[in-house]
Amino acid sequence: MDSEKLRSLLKKVEDHEMSTEEALSELKDFSFQDLEYAKIDHHRELRTGYPEIIFCQGKTIEQLRGIIEAMLAKGSDVVGTRADKEVFESIKDLDPAFVYYEKARIFSLQKKKPNIPETKICVVTAGTSDIPVAEEAAVIAEVLGNNVERIFDVGVAGIHRLMSKLDIIKQSRAVIVVAGMEGALASIVGGLIDKPIIAVPTSVGYGANFGGISALLAMLNSCAGGVSVVNIDNGFGAGYYASMINKI
Amino acid sequence: MDSEKLRSLLKKVEDHEMSTEEALSELKDFSFQDLEYAKIDHHRELRTGYPEIIFCQGKTIEQLRGIIEAMLAKGSDVVGTRADKEVFESIKDLDPAFVYYEKARIFSLQKKKPNIPETKICVVTAGTSDIPVAEEAAVIAEVLGNNVERIFDVGVAGIHRLMSKLDIIKQSRAVIVVAGMEGALASIVGGLIDKPIIAVPTSVGYGANFGGISALLAMLNSCAGGVSVVNIDNGFGAGYYASMINKI
Amino acid sequence: MDSEKLRSLLKKVEDHEMSTEEALSELKDFSFQDLEYAKIDHHRELRTGYPEIIFCQGKTIEQLRGIIEAMLAKGSDVVGTRADKEVFESIKDLDPAFVYYEKARIFSLQKKKPNIPETKICVVTAGTSDIPVAEEAAVIAEVLGNNVERIFDVGVAGIHRLMSKLDIIKQSRAVIVVAGMEGALASIVGGLIDKPIIAVPTSVGYGANFGGISALLAMLNSCAGGVSVVNIDNGFGAGYYASMINKI
Amino acid sequence: MDSEKLRSLLKKVEDHEMSTEEALSELKDFSFQDLEYAKIDHHRELRTGYPEIIFCQGKTIEQLRGIIEAMLAKGSDVVGTRADKEVFESIKDLDPAFVYYEKARIFSLQKKKPNIPETKICVVTAGTSDIPVAEEAAVIAEVLGNNVERIFDVGVAGIHRLMSKLDIIKQSRAVIVVAGMEGALASIVGGLIDKPIIAVPTSVGYGANFGGISALLAMLNSCAGGVSVVNIDNGFGAGYYASMINKI
Amino acid sequence: MDSEKLRSLLKKVEDHEMSTEEALSELKDFSFQDLEYAKIDHHRELRTGYPEIIFCQGKTIEQLRGIIEAMLAKGSDVVGTRADKEVFESIKDLDPAFVYYEKARIFSLQKKKPNIPETKICVVTAGTSDIPVAEEAAVIAEVLGNNVERIFDVGVAGIHRLMSKLDIIKQSRAVIVVAGMEGALASIVGGLIDKPIIAVPTSVGYGANFGGISALLAMLNSCAGGVSVVNIDNGFGAGYYASMINKI
Amino acid sequence: MDSEKLRSLLKKVEDHEMSTEEALSELKDFSFQDLEYAKIDHHRELRTGYPEIIFCQGKTIEQLRGIIEAMLAKGSDVVGTRADKEVFESIKDLDPAFVYYEKARIFSLQKKKPNIPETKICVVTAGTSDIPVAEEAAVIAEVLGNNVERIFDVGVAGIHRLMSKLDIIKQSRAVIVVAGMEGALASIVGGLIDKPIIAVPTSVGYGANFGGISALLAMLNSCAGGVSVVNIDNGFGAGYYASMINKI
Amino acid sequence: MDSEKLRSLLKKVEDHEMSTEEALSELKDFSFQDLEYAKIDHHRELRTGYPEIIFCQGKTIEQLRGIIEAMLAKGSDVVGTRADKEVFESIKDLDPAFVYYEKARIFSLQKKKPNIPETKICVVTAGTSDIPVAEEAAVIAEVLGNNVERIFDVGVAGIHRLMSKLDIIKQSRAVIVVAGMEGALASIVGGLIDKPIIAVPTSVGYGANFGGISALLAMLNSCAGGVSVVNIDNGFGAGYYASMINKI
Amino acid sequence: MDSEKLRSLLKKVEDHEMSTEEALSELKDFSFQDLEYAKIDHHRELRTGYPEIIFCQGKTIEQLRGIIEAMLAKGSDVVGTRADKEVFESIKDLDPAFVYYEKARIFSLQKKKPNIPETKICVVTAGTSDIPVAEEAAVIAEVLGNNVERIFDVGVAGIHRLMSKLDIIKQSRAVIVVAGMEGALASIVGGLIDKPIIAVPTSVGYGANFGGISALLAMLNSCAGGVSVVNIDNGFGAGYYASMINKI
Repeated sequence: MDSEKLRSLLKKVEDHEMSTEEALSELKDFSFQDLEYAKIDHHRELRTGYPEIIFCQGKTIEQLRGIIEAMLAKGSDVVGTRADKEVFESIKDLDPAFVYYEKARIFSLQKKKPNIPETKICVVTAGTSDIPVAEEAAVIAEVLGNNVERIFDVGVAGIHRLMSKLDIIKQSRAVIVVAGMEGALASIVGGLIDKPIIAVPTSVGYGANFGGISALLAMLNSCAGGVSVVNIDNGFGAGYYASMINKI
Repeated sequence: MDSEKLRSLLKKVEDHEMSTEEALSELKDFSFQDLEYAKIDHHRELRTGYPEIIFCQGKTIEQLRGIIEAMLAKGSDVVGTRADKEVFESIKDLDPAFVYYEKARIFSLQKKKPNIPETKICVVTAGTSDIPVAEEAAVIAEVLGNNVERIFDVGVAGIHRLMSKLDIIKQSRAVIVVAGMEGALASIVGGLIDKPIIAVPTSVGYGANFGGISALLAMLNSCAGGVSVVNIDNGFGAGYYASMINKI
Repeated sequence: MDSEKLRSLLKKVEDHEMSTEEALSELKDFSFQDLEYAKIDHHRELRTGYPEIIFCQGKTIEQLRGIIEAMLAKGSDVVGTRADKEVFESIKDLDPAFVYYEKARIFSLQKKKPNIPETKICVVTAGTSDIPVAEEAAVIAEVLGNNVERIFDVGVAGIHRLMSKLDIIKQSRAVIVVAGMEGALASIVGGLIDKPIIAVPTSVGYGANFGGISALLAMLNSCAGGVSVVNIDNGFGAGYYASMINKI
Repeated sequence: MDSEKLRSLLKKVEDHEMSTEEALSELKDFSFQDLEYAKIDHHRELRTGYPEIIFCQGKTIEQLRGIIEAMLAKGSDVVGTRADKEVFESIKDLDPAFVYYEKARIFSLQKKKPNIPETKICVVTAGTSDIPVAEEAAVIAEVLGNNVERIFDVGVAGIHRLMSKLDIIKQSRAVIVVAGMEGALASIVGGLIDKPIIAVPTSVGYGANFGGISALLAMLNSCAGGVSVVNIDNGFGAGYYASMINKI
Repeated sequence: MDSEKLRSLLKKVEDHEMSTEEALSELKDFSFQDLEYAKIDHHRELRTGYPEIIFCQGKTIEQLRGIIEAMLAKGSDVVGTRADKEVFESIKDLDPAFVYYEKARIFSLQKKKPNIPETKICVVTAGTSDIPVAEEAAVIAEVLGNNVERIFDVGVAGIHRLMSKLDIIKQSRAVIVVAGMEGALASIVGGLIDKPIIAVPTSVGYGANFGGISALLAMLNSCAGGVSVVNIDNGFGAGYYASMINKI
Repeated sequence: MDSEKLRSLLKKVEDHEMSTEEALSELKDFSFQDLEYAKIDHHRELRTGYPEIIFCQGKTIEQLRGIIEAMLAKGSDVVGTRADKEVFESIKDLDPAFVYYEKARIFSLQKKKPNIPETKICVVTAGTSDIPVAEEAAVIAEVLGNNVERIFDVGVAGIHRLMSKLDIIKQSRAVIVVAGMEGALASIVGGLIDKPIIAVPTSVGYGANFGGISALLAMLNSCAGGVSVVNIDNGFGAGYYASMINKI
Repeated sequence: MDSEKLRSLLKKVEDHEMSTEEALSELKDFSFQDLEYAKIDHHRELRTGYPEIIFCQGKTIEQLRGIIEAMLAKGSDVVGTRADKEVFESIKDLDPAFVYYEKARIFSLQKKKPNIPETKICVVTAGTSDIPVAEEAAVIAEVLGNNVERIFDVGVAGIHRLMSKLDIIKQSRAVIVVAGMEGALASIVGGLIDKPIIAVPTSVGYGANFGGISALLAMLNSCAGGVSVVNIDNGFGAGYYASMINKI
Repeated sequence: MDSEKLRSLLKKVEDHEMSTEEALSELKDFSFQDLEYAKIDHHRELRTGYPEIIFCQGKTIEQLRGIIEAMLAKGSDVVGTRADKEVFESIKDLDPAFVYYEKARIFSLQKKKPNIPETKICVVTAGTSDIPVAEEAAVIAEVLGNNVERIFDVGVAGIHRLMSKLDIIKQSRAVIVVAGMEGALASIVGGLIDKPIIAVPTSVGYGANFGGISALLAMLNSCAGGVSVVNIDNGFGAGYYASMINKI
């Protein structure tokens, strides 16, 4: 409900191009469609520059199909995260153009070719087990129109592995660091480069990692200056955030 | 054991209408029936104005059937929460009048038509995944004799959705706000209206939401004044509480 | 920004009684005054029925004086919570009509006599040490225009004390239960009466009470139906909430 | 290795009835038998007055059979806790005299009739769902030779239920209180009687009970004086402890 | 409100020796005196066998003096715990017979000589720093009329120290084990003797002891059977509980 | 130790312009100076684009003076955070050009005028009490050469306050949101704009905010996509990160 | 990248035996092989004296096979931990010489006979249920070339069992103590011997052991001096660490 | 009470060189002296090879003086940790030979020159604020007779600092790594060298470091193999442990 829209609407009322009741109704129904169980935000793309992305986990297949159909009807792009293979199987008939990224658990349908800047986003993982979360981040960034460089398994216990990839990392505009266990990789990369780092703690590990808390705390307490953190296993949030930075 | 009853009983003893031993026995056996594994509280309805509602989770089918039969024998209304479909299937033969609310996981049998006030209770959810808990709250409030308005998926990340429903929310006498993740919806509604809000944190989310703790803490720390909180996923408690307020 | 106001404003624009720019400005500056470090919400009283109450803890004396002066200038009532004696001493010169409630750590200045309903709010504490929090709740409720009944030190370990006061408790419209340690008093009162209970856990106790967590968890897990909870030591929130219920 | 035994052994050495090497060996091999994966403590009964009780959870069937056979060979009584039905089925062939208590998940084989004192132990539960833990406590106390009184489902939200059973509770020598959720029952019983109470928090509940922590903290913070606590769901520990007190 | 009293009261009503209103009033005012900020429980001694003991922490001097004066007026014994030296200095003028136990932070005034059984209670500490909590336990037990044996600084890291005192420990009827840090002493004593052990975790330690949680968890998880636990630093509770057991 | 430097160094060795021992020594002593208690990183500015900033908390005055003198001797800019007034008083004699920002607890000495881009960073707070943390963020961003817009006290409980400032917020390149209590402001701003948000939880609040955990968890669980989080009260980290984004 | 290697490489460049580009490439590709999803560290054995050991949990069968094949191709020894039977079944065809240790969930293939010192490592468990973790520790130590002594089920509740094995324990060079529940065994062994103890908390237990936290905290808070701790259930880490000490 | 001593004692009894009562008494009073509030362990040095070291925190000056006098009387070496300057001032008159290490808060008096091996222990810190804990570790190791190398402030955010010191670190026999905040230094050192690392988390930091938990968890979850952990801020434990390893 920003000033621009409000001003033009008020102008129409002033010019008697629109009645007050129409204006009221416009202000209310303008921006979303009511499916009863889900309000779909068709104008989000205008407002924030990104389409609404469906978080599939915790939604029933019926709800998902309803949401997707409404989005398709409006000609929106459709992207879904946390979609297991079975979920994808049960919605893919809605449009033959759907693509599924299995490792990332993401499906997407993109009609508009996004504008892809030349600058890159780099996704780095500490270990092999961090790859699923890293793929979620990477695919989201790609879906949103970014070039992504993947550098996996360069974890702390063998720091020379990281060093050999440092030039590639330095050429990125934003770096996503995905790590479980002691989560130290974010601090180390942060001490070596001057680009914003988005740290993603993962729930990988055992014993006192407590579902990712050990990595989360380590990343929040990073003594390197350019590190911010998203939620445990939140690859989506990291990819989205890196895309925002890359597209500035 | 309130003063009224005690006074009349003492009067009967004074008037020799009742022996001391009878009085003693009355005082003891008066108010509940012993099933060995469960004491059923037949007079609760008199005492608190609401029938005892069975929390099915953690009880065996045998125990449930025993409790329900005893309640039916006394002519009580019977309501059960946290009853999965299988639970309902295995008790529904006890009375053909049983109704099952699947989304809310509640069954009920109500002989007495409750007195329904004109004022409303409003149940609001942040997302689609919060609906099961919201339905538990809504159905309990309905079973207890209230008009309920459902407004789902008007969460914080798209606050304009909420704004369009504000008039309806303002006309309610009590508002139940159901939200997981960052649980901010309760504070926002609390800042916009002057009705008591019952906040229900849900365990929806991932990563550092820790089974609902993130939403619980956010709601407890709400800087809006008119917000109180019930337990994580406790739709029942919220519906019951809102009913109390609505029936004042 | 409710429909009523919006409609009338749009009407004025339509009728050329107001320019679009005036309307825009109205919509923006209408409801609060900017002190740079604090936005004072003069229309809150209209919107939620209660004046904005200043949470003094964490604000400097200068900030407090600035906020109070701005409120006095608008003729608002002024109420401050978490105000230690020294805080009060350093602001009381701003108006001779200020009153200070020491046990509750609240100051107030009320020009308008609030409308006091006949129904009561009851404030119950488990122990003597819970009294400061209980007084905060009680004074806030009184300041907002309610009759308050105080029943202190009727804790769980001597349940007969509670029983003797039950008639008074039952006649209240809302009951605030303040308890630290094991926080069981809320459940017990909840099992005995049919009025909404607002439970306030206190940080009173020692050992594994963890600053009130033991009481907080106990109250959230109350097996009695009519109990909702506010934050640890949050007497203000409880008094405000009970007032909302009492004034329905 | 108490003084008595040591003195008599030293005496034998002094009197040349035993060589120093024999004495050394005696001191070492005296008290237990080595099964490699489990050291069985045959003299525990002498030392602490109670046989060693097998905690079955986490042991393989082979290990359990080995342990039981060794105990049977020595003529020991055999009691096992946390034994699911399948566990019992796979060991019961070792002796036809084995008895299985399903609700308590305990099996036992007792050759010696224990000495049963006239005084009683009382086991009280707050709800129906607490019964399995309560049965573990009750059966252990019975197996160790005590009269046990069971009083189930007399929880806090309906305190009059408890009152009617108070006379029975008061006649016990030790009271085991089993409760989940807010765990308040222990405090209440503790405020009404002057016998030692052993409180057992259970993991029954939902939301912020955190697997029994809410009840555990409430019980530890009990403001009643005569309450001590055992681990969450530790019916065995409570039954054993109550037996110790009853047999003094 | 036990059966005996109720029966005799009902009898009087039946015999017209007492009016119903008198009976009602008797039932209500019978058992405690109302000081507004504290309900004093004069009949607690009759009911539970122990006088009410004042927990001084968190009470103002005025409240303490009021409570003590009321107790003295009724001829009750007076015992106060968590009383720092300054607290004692400001109440001791109320009766010259007050005694102060500085290490235990307890004051007492006992007119009636308690009946002291021959059996003993033993208080054991792991380290020197655990002594203040141990003294609270020991003095409370003595004040309640028990012989107490103190055995301090026999902690786990030098287990031979404990062994030399084992005979004394074995002759006690209940053993209080006070330990901070890893809290293992309770398990060890529990494995060596067959008497009930009351374990008191202390907040002594540093680093990850978290104010006593490490010892608390260790004691709750004790693999020895005869161990129950009271709250962190709760010497009072342990002494009171041990006295209950010793006086059976 | 990036490829460029390594290549040129190897070239010199190859061309016999440098001996292997010289090369070795160069590789080791090149980049920092050893003060024994602190290694000062003079080339950090080259490597990451930002000078090393001194975290004063936990360092002695002597250590601070030593570090500052070494930096001044090299002609470095000097910036210190978490510097209380007393700290500043005891180091300011080292150079008359030192400036102190009291609310932000930062001192700085900047010889080189930083290059300031036209784009802005916006710092938003929920309440008045969040201002110290917000000032730390704002001053750090300014010191690093950025235009900063401050918008304070636009918290969630009065969301219309925020709306009136939305245009300013939207024109920023990165938004720092500082909030305590329920921390919801970050989600709300995130739902309204399409710029990267750096959320800073503060330890402001009481009761169950647990020193900032409630806000931290809420922000990590934000359902808005463009939110990343730094440590509790870490204004420095947020300002530094926003500067990185603004300077891309 | 230690000085020795660097010096010799620089020398070659100086002597024109190697071009700068070759040197650069050498420095980068020298030490590991890139499998895309896993960087294999062939020179780790040279660098740290131990081969890289594969942590199988969380890796797919394909990834495991790829890693193993690459290691076999280089002639490396191959050891995998956390390998369930199914995992082993699906990789064992890669080389007939693979050995599987079922209790320890480890497979290994060792071509080089390790050098086994005469000194021993001792692995001690408190209970029978701790054996799987203890076996992981023991087998890792054996695989790395050590003599291992196993002493199982000598837990705290029967301390005399431990005493009889003390001579064997004392002859070891490092002692691994594996314990769940209250984890006291580490302190006790630490008080009796003067060898470094590696304590491994296990997640064995129930109730408030919280997946091993109780044992972890107890071990960290050990009042015995020679105890260090590895992660919960981390048998691998303990075996590896003990081997390091034994091979000094 | 090891076999050797027991055998010789039994031999004397057999040879009538000692009566059974003398033997009994010997076995009991042999190894420590009773000060009532502290048992001093004079034979600890024989048993574990190290003198008992006094943990001063939480002991009164009187207790400390008593303990030290008893140790001096026996000719023991005396070492005290956690001794603030004031503590040292009030005990130093007991012997003019006392030395005080202020940064480490340790005092010592050593008559016997310890045997110092040529091998070294290395103490590494991440930051300047970690130095007090590191000094405690270093001084304890020196007092116990070891050469110690200090390498301070080589933290993760500037990893090249660490690299330049790697040769020194590699030549040590055991490495103590002291770090707060994200605690990653231990993992990094662990990935670079093949010596046992003792990691000490410190409570340095702010925000979500929770008094050292962030570093503690990171270190426990280290993915490097040769890392074990002692308690938060436990410099003493680390120095003692490293000494054990160095003296093998």
